[in-house]
Amino acid sequence: MKPKNAFYAQSGGVTAVINASAAGVIETARKHKTKIGKVYAGRNGIIGALTEDLIDTSRENARAIAALKHTPAGAFGSCRYKLKGIEENRAQYERLIDVFRAHDIGYFFYNGGNDSADTCLKVSQLSERLGYPLVAVHVPKTVDNDLPITDNCPGFGSVAKYVAVSMREAAFDVASMYKTSTRVFVLEVMGRHAGWITAAVGMAEDKATPIPLVLLFPEVRFDEAKFLAAVDAKVKRFGYCCVGVSEGLLNAEGALMAEAGTRDAFGHAQLGGVGPLIASLVKDKLGHKYHWAVADYLQRSARHIASKTDVAHAYAVGKVAVELAVAGHNAVMPAITRTGNRPYRWKITVAPLTKVANVEKMLPRNFITADGYGITAKARAYLAPLIHGEDYPPFADGVPQYVRLKNSAVPKKLKTEFKI
Amino acid sequence: MKPKNAFYAQSGGVTAVINASAAGVIETARKHKTKIGKVYAGRNGIIGALTEDLIDTSRENARAIAALKHTPAGAFGSCRYKLKGIEENRAQYERLIDVFRAHDIGYFFYNGGNDSADTCLKVSQLSERLGYPLVAVHVPKTVDNDLPITDNCPGFGSVAKYVAVSMREAAFDVASMYKTSTRVFVLEVMGRHAGWITAAVGMAEDKATPIPLVLLFPEVRFDEAKFLAAVDAKVKRFGYCCVGVSEGLLNAEGALMAEAGTRDAFGHAQLGGVGPLIASLVKDKLGHKYHWAVADYLQRSARHIASKTDVAHAYAVGKVAVELAVAGHNAVMPAITRTGNRPYRWKITVAPLTKVANVEKMLPRNFITADGYGITAKARAYLAPLIHGEDYPPFADGVPQYVRLKNSAVPKKLKTEFKI
Repeated sequence: MKPKNAFYAQSGGVTAVINASAAGVIETARKHKTKIGKVYAGRNGIIGALTEDLIDTSRENARAIAALKHTPAGAFGSCRYKLKGIEENRAQYERLIDVFRAHDIGYFFYNGGNDSADTCLKVSQLSERLGYPLVAVHVPKTVDNDLPITDNCPGFGSVAKYVAVSMREAAFDVASMYKTSTRVFVLEVMGRHAGWITAAVGMAEDKATPIPLVLLFPEVRFDEAKFLAAVDAKVKRFGYCCVGVSEGLLNAEGALMAEAGTRDAFGHAQLGGVGPLIASLVKDKLGHKYHWAVADYLQRSARHIASKTDVAHAYAVGKVAVELAVAGHNAVMPAITRTGNRPYRWKITVAPLTKVANVEKMLPRNFITADGYGITAKARAYLAPLIHGEDYPPFADGVPQYVRLKNSAVPKKLKTEFKI
Repeated sequence: MKPKNAFYAQSGGVTAVINASAAGVIETARKHKTKIGKVYAGRNGIIGALTEDLIDTSRENARAIAALKHTPAGAFGSCRYKLKGIEENRAQYERLIDVFRAHDIGYFFYNGGNDSADTCLKVSQLSERLGYPLVAVHVPKTVDNDLPITDNCPGFGSVAKYVAVSMREAAFDVASMYKTSTRVFVLEVMGRHAGWITAAVGMAEDKATPIPLVLLFPEVRFDEAKFLAAVDAKVKRFGYCCVGVSEGLLNAEGALMAEAGTRDAFGHAQLGGVGPLIASLVKDKLGHKYHWAVADYLQRSARHIASKTDVAHAYAVGKVAVELAVAGHNAVMPAITRTGNRPYRWKITVAPLTKVANVEKMLPRNFITADGYGITAKARAYLAPLIHGEDYPPFADGVPQYVRLKNSAVPKKLKTEFKI
């Protein structure tokens, strides 16, 4: 029997290492030629499946696929597009089946975060509910690190490393300037719902390199007076203070600070991120000179300073996803399971998607210090292995050499169009 | 005769490689023990000289001094403090002489940018004008790259590399998301008066990796309609657009955009940087989804992605400064002179401080494309060698291992205090 083809798609916000998962999927599929035919990627994620816009990854040579391991962002394009329930939008699922049938697709690999795990679960039910035979495996990915069961999510370790390294470097800068210039530096980081990335800023310092840090977690409601007192105490004692703030910081009423229409000392509505807002508050109320940075996409695309551990995780979940699929496991996700901390040891286990979809893993309260502004030894023990190791991409002419694939389209077979 | 001691100070905004110049000065001075006694560093720059707050670098072992080569920011502290003219503030200069005489200082090494070159020139005249024998040599440093005579300024190459790498990475991110999400990404970079760093953003792309970029230079007055048309054209053609904007962008009237009280579509005064301002303009007028980043200090402290060429330059100017001083050259600056482009070749030459002080080297107009939004082949040929090569610092536990010196104080000898 001719082996079935596989469909692979990237979903949601991309990361520095999601393409390493793609490499894991494609390279492993190529080793299972008796079970898997070609790997078709969705152009711009699941939208590519719905619109029959498929990319033939078999047209890419081994070198290009290997280069995905050191290339950030989504090589096939990603999208923010959530499938509704099968009952609510049966047409979408029937369309998926039409496309999959037309292209003889028997495997579905979905590389994404929380919402995507839910989509993958729904697709995994096509076989049973709509009679189309399909094996669906979710490949975990999200800088937000909020998927359950898996110890951590590929993509997170590299952002964590980026923010820890960046804050350490900026702290050295401020430490050398505070005598006559900037005393408070504010770095805004991602992570709207959970403070995993904010916690990682705390890894900028350690026993050998203490830094006066104040962290503002989305889990801890902002208390202006208490925050200002904490910053001022650091400035008085150390001469300067570095603040790491989550884009998702909430005010006392539980509203996003960045959207709460806060006004500065002049009554101006403050737009833009929470980083500049916190910085101007420090200036208005304490009078300290400040600087602020908003890393935004730089943090999640910074493949040049990716964590080696994270790259290895990302590749492994892609590889094992294919191994699970060819073994007939449906509706599962390869999960990273920590088996030791010193040295860090891990293995890939299998998580049922029913236990993954729509469950958010929050930052444990015991990762945050009692005052709400720092991380505990528990958090450090968890984070340390995830930022460990460097995995530099190749450089030429001073800049990293990232691959752009040919992304050749698979000829369409259906006569019908599908509106997104 | 007992050799004279040397004074070394870091001045103005610090960089990823200014400590490499410090290492060049200290290691070279240690090789000239018959001519130079100890190297005393000013704690927080020239303020340390005025307040007799000197650091004894001879208390640091060779390993610590060598580690300065891979440590960003100012290891002895820097300051923003400009000395007035000798006539205007004779007391400052007499104080300097008192301190230098008390500590037997015969050499003055000043590591800074434009203002500092002027200060160094004034100090070089102490010998002639106030009768105190002193050899003063300026060690060039500034991310702004605006010192004359020298081909480039140590510190600039590393910022240039950082912004080129970061924009390339962010562009890969946006390219994979624009179908359903961000179409315009804005990165704000440093360089208030001259567009050298903005030009370096242009190095994010090359023939092998084209990126739809629009650069906003401080040299080109902002034309809203023309800019929006340029961005929209890129979005229509490529699906997305990346904008690099200088913090010093000026509006049609020549006022700083970031301070011009521009109002958004809702009539809110827009505070914060020019990056978010440009981004919200794109959203308000074109309706494109956007993201923005402000790298701020991250760009000038990013030793983890420093340019190898830049590190070599920085060390060399420190080393040659000492060699010039022991050879009796007063009122000079070691300058980087380019002797070849392919491969890049350079040597250190000697520039008289009278030709350096208070002269700003602006970005040549022929480095900017005719439309005002890109860089020319001439700019690329100039910039390429400066971002070439990587020089990674050592890492442990996932973060770079930067040195913190003991910075032991030299016992004070004067009874008098000096108010700053």
